[in-house]
Amino acid sequence: MITDIFSERESNVRSYCRKFPAVFSKAKNAELFDSSGNRYIDFLAVAGSMNYGHNNPEIKQAILEYMAQDNIINALDLHTEAKAEFLSAFYDSILKPRSLDYKIMCCGPTGTNGVEAALKIARLHTGRSNVIAFSGAFHGMSIGSLSLTTDHVSRSGAGIPLQNVTFVPYCGNFNSLEYIKWMLSDDHSGIERPAAIVLETVQAEGGINIATAEWLQSVRQICDRYGILLICDDIQVGCGRTGHFFSFERAGITPDLVVLSKSISGFGIPMTILLIKPEYDIFKPAEHNGTFRGHQPAFVGAKAAVDYYIAHDMDQMVADGEKIIRDYMDKNILPLHPALEVRGIGMLWGVDLHSIDPKLALEISHDCYEHGLIVEVCGRRDGVVKLIPPLTIEKDTLIEGLDILQASLKKALKDVK
Amino acid sequence: MITDIFSERESNVRSYCRKFPAVFSKAKNAELFDSSGNRYIDFLAVAGSMNYGHNNPEIKQAILEYMAQDNIINALDLHTEAKAEFLSAFYDSILKPRSLDYKIMCCGPTGTNGVEAALKIARLHTGRSNVIAFSGAFHGMSIGSLSLTTDHVSRSGAGIPLQNVTFVPYCGNFNSLEYIKWMLSDDHSGIERPAAIVLETVQAEGGINIATAEWLQSVRQICDRYGILLICDDIQVGCGRTGHFFSFERAGITPDLVVLSKSISGFGIPMTILLIKPEYDIFKPAEHNGTFRGHQPAFVGAKAAVDYYIAHDMDQMVADGEKIIRDYMDKNILPLHPALEVRGIGMLWGVDLHSIDPKLALEISHDCYEHGLIVEVCGRRDGVVKLIPPLTIEKDTLIEGLDILQASLKKALKDVK
Amino acid sequence: MITDIFSERESNVRSYCRKFPAVFSKAKNAELFDSSGNRYIDFLAVAGSMNYGHNNPEIKQAILEYMAQDNIINALDLHTEAKAEFLSAFYDSILKPRSLDYKIMCCGPTGTNGVEAALKIARLHTGRSNVIAFSGAFHGMSIGSLSLTTDHVSRSGAGIPLQNVTFVPYCGNFNSLEYIKWMLSDDHSGIERPAAIVLETVQAEGGINIATAEWLQSVRQICDRYGILLICDDIQVGCGRTGHFFSFERAGITPDLVVLSKSISGFGIPMTILLIKPEYDIFKPAEHNGTFRGHQPAFVGAKAAVDYYIAHDMDQMVADGEKIIRDYMDKNILPLHPALEVRGIGMLWGVDLHSIDPKLALEISHDCYEHGLIVEVCGRRDGVVKLIPPLTIEKDTLIEGLDILQASLKKALKDVK
Amino acid sequence: MITDIFSERESNVRSYCRKFPAVFSKAKNAELFDSSGNRYIDFLAVAGSMNYGHNNPEIKQAILEYMAQDNIINALDLHTEAKAEFLSAFYDSILKPRSLDYKIMCCGPTGTNGVEAALKIARLHTGRSNVIAFSGAFHGMSIGSLSLTTDHVSRSGAGIPLQNVTFVPYCGNFNSLEYIKWMLSDDHSGIERPAAIVLETVQAEGGINIATAEWLQSVRQICDRYGILLICDDIQVGCGRTGHFFSFERAGITPDLVVLSKSISGFGIPMTILLIKPEYDIFKPAEHNGTFRGHQPAFVGAKAAVDYYIAHDMDQMVADGEKIIRDYMDKNILPLHPALEVRGIGMLWGVDLHSIDPKLALEISHDCYEHGLIVEVCGRRDGVVKLIPPLTIEKDTLIEGLDILQASLKKALKDVK
Repeated sequence: MITDIFSERESNVRSYCRKFPAVFSKAKNAELFDSSGNRYIDFLAVAGSMNYGHNNPEIKQAILEYMAQDNIINALDLHTEAKAEFLSAFYDSILKPRSLDYKIMCCGPTGTNGVEAALKIARLHTGRSNVIAFSGAFHGMSIGSLSLTTDHVSRSGAGIPLQNVTFVPYCGNFNSLEYIKWMLSDDHSGIERPAAIVLETVQAEGGINIATAEWLQSVRQICDRYGILLICDDIQVGCGRTGHFFSFERAGITPDLVVLSKSISGFGIPMTILLIKPEYDIFKPAEHNGTFRGHQPAFVGAKAAVDYYIAHDMDQMVADGEKIIRDYMDKNILPLHPALEVRGIGMLWGVDLHSIDPKLALEISHDCYEHGLIVEVCGRRDGVVKLIPPLTIEKDTLIEGLDILQASLKKALKDVK
Repeated sequence: MITDIFSERESNVRSYCRKFPAVFSKAKNAELFDSSGNRYIDFLAVAGSMNYGHNNPEIKQAILEYMAQDNIINALDLHTEAKAEFLSAFYDSILKPRSLDYKIMCCGPTGTNGVEAALKIARLHTGRSNVIAFSGAFHGMSIGSLSLTTDHVSRSGAGIPLQNVTFVPYCGNFNSLEYIKWMLSDDHSGIERPAAIVLETVQAEGGINIATAEWLQSVRQICDRYGILLICDDIQVGCGRTGHFFSFERAGITPDLVVLSKSISGFGIPMTILLIKPEYDIFKPAEHNGTFRGHQPAFVGAKAAVDYYIAHDMDQMVADGEKIIRDYMDKNILPLHPALEVRGIGMLWGVDLHSIDPKLALEISHDCYEHGLIVEVCGRRDGVVKLIPPLTIEKDTLIEGLDILQASLKKALKDVK
Repeated sequence: MITDIFSERESNVRSYCRKFPAVFSKAKNAELFDSSGNRYIDFLAVAGSMNYGHNNPEIKQAILEYMAQDNIINALDLHTEAKAEFLSAFYDSILKPRSLDYKIMCCGPTGTNGVEAALKIARLHTGRSNVIAFSGAFHGMSIGSLSLTTDHVSRSGAGIPLQNVTFVPYCGNFNSLEYIKWMLSDDHSGIERPAAIVLETVQAEGGINIATAEWLQSVRQICDRYGILLICDDIQVGCGRTGHFFSFERAGITPDLVVLSKSISGFGIPMTILLIKPEYDIFKPAEHNGTFRGHQPAFVGAKAAVDYYIAHDMDQMVADGEKIIRDYMDKNILPLHPALEVRGIGMLWGVDLHSIDPKLALEISHDCYEHGLIVEVCGRRDGVVKLIPPLTIEKDTLIEGLDILQASLKKALKDVK
Repeated sequence: MITDIFSERESNVRSYCRKFPAVFSKAKNAELFDSSGNRYIDFLAVAGSMNYGHNNPEIKQAILEYMAQDNIINALDLHTEAKAEFLSAFYDSILKPRSLDYKIMCCGPTGTNGVEAALKIARLHTGRSNVIAFSGAFHGMSIGSLSLTTDHVSRSGAGIPLQNVTFVPYCGNFNSLEYIKWMLSDDHSGIERPAAIVLETVQAEGGINIATAEWLQSVRQICDRYGILLICDDIQVGCGRTGHFFSFERAGITPDLVVLSKSISGFGIPMTILLIKPEYDIFKPAEHNGTFRGHQPAFVGAKAAVDYYIAHDMDQMVADGEKIIRDYMDKNILPLHPALEVRGIGMLWGVDLHSIDPKLALEISHDCYEHGLIVEVCGRRDGVVKLIPPLTIEKDTLIEGLDILQASLKKALKDVK
């Protein structure tokens, strides 16, 4: 059997395939197909990497055209036409219309690499070692980023104490703003002034926790007041996911550093960029580097994705999708149980089963899979069912997926009082 | 001008493009072409990522065929046909013939990510925090790997003290084996027994420093004696570079963990794998993860690259290339100056100008570029000219490049006594 | 002038002498005399080291008798008669009547050394690196203890990041118990389960912050529930200061490790002991050591102090003193200004000027000194006047000192609305 | 039995008393007496704290006179007459004649506290975190100092990774000077430029390893060249032990920071001072502090000790003692076995049994004890018998002790080929 090769030769670290054990083969927009031809609706979107849908035809065409000829594929940080076109398009269509003046750093193509680069800049600029991160955060798995990542399984893998970070409660918990202000202003708090505050405006892995605009604005003010850099990890919730290209737009704030990855190439190709306010563009040449920071098909895809974003008015597309989901939740999900909690923004939603029984979430995910829907769990004790479909999902497919979810929820909740 | 976009919008961290400022466009095997059609011979090979040549036609065809249809592009660690084929091919054609029983971990697609994963395993397995690395080493730029990287510019970017590593001299320096044995056996050395010894069998960035087979064997014995894991970073010198698929084969040793990246996909696509002896395959599911560990075109390329490796007998190809370079060095380079040092193995060579004047190396690199050869510097004070062409380079192109190098050397050395 | 020698030859680090610049010469119970014969009432008691009064005659006699003969003065951790007598007396008169079964470790004679030893035990026992400490805490100045000390000036002296500690709010702030429970139970808090919770039952340096008995009991329960050791730093508030020999007695809890120092020798001689529940007495021989852990006059003093404590019923003595101070505060201090806050327990009291103007505290301390009272400031921004007289202070002297304080307060507050 | 109290109530950490289990009572110069009146010659001198002999009558008289009246006993860092007299005497009699212009910092009274203070100054001054220490070093047991201490048992007590230190081989090992120069000058050594090099001019705990004057001078030059502070830990080998008041005098160098403890008070009273070149006297007031830094009897003793040192020409006293020991070694010890190694300077000597069998050292120590000589082991695997008698030991007692040692050595070596 083909799956034997995985159990025999692939490391035990593999994880998603244990929940969704099919052998996947084809993918088109929001549908996956396994090698037996079975169809699955995709509410996972490669953990948010497929905002533009699997095999988005416009992006795909651009990449295939580029690759069909002998264009350069990897070029480190050398000048190339493909990169120039991406930089121009990204500036003209994304940054400039938002009056954002970021310099663009092409990092190693993992999200965690962008976070590592951002941390370096903040520490170099301020001369401080501490950074503040939030309980519930997920920022990556290399030691610098992992120090900021909160879930116990991830952290326990380090094998060393993870240092130079102070965790504080996220928006909605323990009066977090007052707590931060106190620790920064109290001369006996014990907590060193940080180089940066690192946040996700919506914690996706943490359980679809949505910071309010007011809270985000206050964090920005705190950073300004104390000379702290604000780093926004927009790896999972950027690229349109929450209804704007950048997730922080709804709060009207400008972070000092922004990490984009996952959907930035538009096609699932590994790519990460770090946006840097010009005054913090302080790296010396090669002070942070990496071989794959110049993978040209990623630039080609990212340029095509920017064009796609504009041409198809994806802000509106997400607004439409959000409305469908919200209505469905209100009408069909929330009535299933009085203790059910639902949180969402744009096309990122969570059905929270903590108040009922967090173990149900995984059960529901399994059942959905059996009925042709790929949907993950997230949050504390994996107690939240997480909906993160491609932004381009067809309305019918979206409803079809929600129907499967509703049926699984019903089944799971039928014996719960 | 097209290059304005880079200075205006790209971060100051960019580096290679300052030395080789052309705007590159096309690439074919060992030749690059800029947007004006100028041709450059490539003795850099994307820092060792292009062992199979730019746009290797066989690998390219496999990838394009895969992408032409709506095959899945990114799949996290889900089962896919493309990954199954890669795992099978890699096991059957690479591991099994060498009696290597490694489990394969698909890491985030940066080399540094593979090193981070290997460090975690070693620390988890042993319960120790310290690791031994070697002066001259380069292992990556995220905090875990950066702790093992030695050059001052890279380290100074961290902004925090880099911890949990003990540096020792590399093969050929300060009686390194005795030094390691002493620090491990002396109950007053002050140095904690390490979880791992991490090494490159040839330090590429460190200046083309080649460990002897005897030295490597002794390090393996030390690891066995003291219960220390041996981690081989084969990111730059694996995939055939030194005359065997794995660089450690010449020493007849088996590391406990091996990191492959750069050329593993055969096409410059971001990809990294970690090879793990089964007894150390101890990660819990998802204890190390990352979004781009399932980029399928990379698996397709890597499978095609394995096939190419076998079909074209690349061990022999490298042996032939090595002979050409060695002969050329003996006949045309070494006679240029009595203090010139040349070191090389397989198709990785260094011309060391330290005994004359390390600053000449960069001067020579610039002059070569002016004459159509891309060649980098490496090592202490950037004093070594580093030759790392595609393994597939045509004999004529190789000689042509060497001739350019010889001319630049001559010019640089003409006023040196 | 005699004080020239200090400015010329003593390090700038000197501190108390800048506030109280007299040259001190004689000391008797709660009075100090400078070299010109001026008298000062002592509400500082060598930062709590003089609970038994300066030159306590009974303790002094025991020490002088010991030293008059050629009895051994320092003996490392060798068996001696003096130590045997101390251990017996301390067990029989202090531990046994309280049903405490601690093993006694004679540490290096600084309080910080006892804290360092306690931290080692907790980390060795649990295999964890993190410890929880409280904002407002002061535990010492060597790197292990300094990591737990919170005031900014002390921490900034380290010159390195201080690691392996998580700070939480102390009793009365930010719902601290809920906060601790949350961080320990939330699998996404980011905070590693600690080896220990380290606390002072009353934060003296932190501003006379008094934990409630209920809070202390809850912390003890949390430790029990999560397998965390409870370390009580009784350096400043032990030895009777709060009305019982141990400060934690009022809460009916038993810490796992207790550090005693300052007043333990009864005479101002450097001495520190760590009390260890037998099950945590896990150090290997010499795993923590130090030359001066066997200073015999300290043991002689400590034995005499135990005898004095019992003979003079110091619990009652402190209860009487507490009543005098409390009545005085209620009648004469609190009426001075509606925003004045007063906190105290046993014979440790603070007059908190934060709500008025924290800078006044230092002004008041200066004025008191001018009028013959030594009284220090503490707490956030040094805004609390701290009263910590010898427990043995005569009633008249106590009232006399309080009168000086009242007069200084009046003067300082006269222009404050 | 009196010793029951120790096993019942004292922590298992106790160590010396396991080797020398008598209950000690009296002590006079170089003789100890147990509670049964048995006499022991003391070749341990409280680990070097009794350079002036137990109960030195001149020092004792000064202390008893001070204590007989109600002079202040502890005074934090307030001005006192006793401290003024110590500072004057120390400057006039010790520093000035040697043209040393150190500022004097009165630290907490443990040696480790002085090392912690010195490390802070070096790190604050340079802004660097790393320090270089030497294999074989012992600098104390609190976390800052323990990071520099090398023996495995001490380090394993920490329970956390010990950071911010780089160990290098000591004089006589692995070409240590070249090694240090290399790591500082090589831009790929991986080792951060240190804030300080910390050394003992003779490693006592490390096995009586004596740095040459040339080596010490070279280290001083390296420090000058690279802007590194030189910290001399003279805790055990200062105060006359090696033939000069400071151990570094023989090399004609001036460290930037010097820690004195153990014998500084002349009487075994806990006391530590840090000597600081004026340009590094950078602590802010109270940036390092501690309750017992103002124990006045220690200052009185230390002043009397300085007077004693001058009055009795202790440099000559040590020279005489050294000659006796050296002659005895040459004539009576070295001939016992061809593989016996003996090292010594001043009145600090080691008989090294490593080349024969390190386990013999402890056996010999035990046998000496049975015959009335207290002598410890030190060094790697405790393989060196360490002679560190009071400097004031009478010639006859010294010879008597050496005779006991010789007899024990003979017995231990009689079956060894």
